[in-house]
Amino acid sequence: MKLGDGVEAAIHCAATLASVDGNSTMPGAALAECFGLSPSYLLKHLNQLTAARILESVPGPAGGYRLARAAEQITLLDVVLAIEGREPAFRCGEIRQRGPVKIDASAYVKPCGINVAMLKAERAYRAALAEVKLSDIVAEYAAEGDPRSYAASCAFVERHQRPQKSASPKQP
Amino acid sequence: MKLGDGVEAAIHCAATLASVDGNSTMPGAALAECFGLSPSYLLKHLNQLTAARILESVPGPAGGYRLARAAEQITLLDVVLAIEGREPAFRCGEIRQRGPVKIDASAYVKPCGINVAMLKAERAYRAALAEVKLSDIVAEYAAEGDPRSYAASCAFVERHQRPQKSASPKQP
Repeated sequence: MKLGDGVEAAIHCAATLASVDGNSTMPGAALAECFGLSPSYLLKHLNQLTAARILESVPGPAGGYRLARAAEQITLLDVVLAIEGREPAFRCGEIRQRGPVKIDASAYVKPCGINVAMLKAERAYRAALAEVKLSDIVAEYAAEGDPRSYAASCAFVERHQRPQKSASPKQP
Repeated sequence: MKLGDGVEAAIHCAATLASVDGNSTMPGAALAECFGLSPSYLLKHLNQLTAARILESVPGPAGGYRLARAAEQITLLDVVLAIEGREPAFRCGEIRQRGPVKIDASAYVKPCGINVAMLKAERAYRAALAEVKLSDIVAEYAAEGDPRSYAASCAFVERHQRPQKSASPKQP
């Protein structure tokens, strides 16, 4: 089982955008620079986050990205599903019906017990991810991260954020 | 996140081998036939299960595979890790240290909070898989699966299993 490395980039970017002021935005190029990533590589993942309505993309020369809703309303599960897709990790191919032991379709109305057990484990995984809000990640970084590192991140956001006139749904 | 389809094949094969009598074995070709799989495709996964000491491979013309230990001592987690590898699904690339916000190494002694949260979810996933024994899968199929389907599976095992003279560690 493997998650794409886009998940790490996406969570870091979303957490960074949780720190911009008000309805300011941050250009994709600045987010890429912040984590030493190629802007074109990151663009794909920023687009996935935008399509999933986790981010909003503001067009124009002063545009960029911002959270589409408050960081308290975005969980790690939202971000993981935006990048990896919503399909379960285990995909039952119904191989129980493929060989010579196959009998008529009425025998397979109940799902395969193996599939049931695998999906139960995946629900536990998703529930654990759904418990962690983006705001928790940011608060923990502020409280327990290295203070120099936290200050450097805040200064980077400060330098690269762009105030916007348009209202953001992030603001109540 | 995606698991390879080898996981489904591996769990079905291990569950089938849990039903062979005593220290009998079943040839890989019969396991492949049972689930409509290509024998060469399945061989790779049977080898992975053997390397992980979930299966034992008995060589020779009357050989085949059998469980290396009792079905009560094999969990879904054992099988999943044998096929997918033991690495966590989320692999922290330490991108927090890659960009211009990087400061000196002493700032990164504590693991990244994002990594901590992702690994916690993976522990929940693995714990749920570790709760399900192969013997549970078999018992549930016997008790709650379609009786015709269960009978057909048992008959298939009966036809294809090969008694062995050598002792199996499965037997106490």
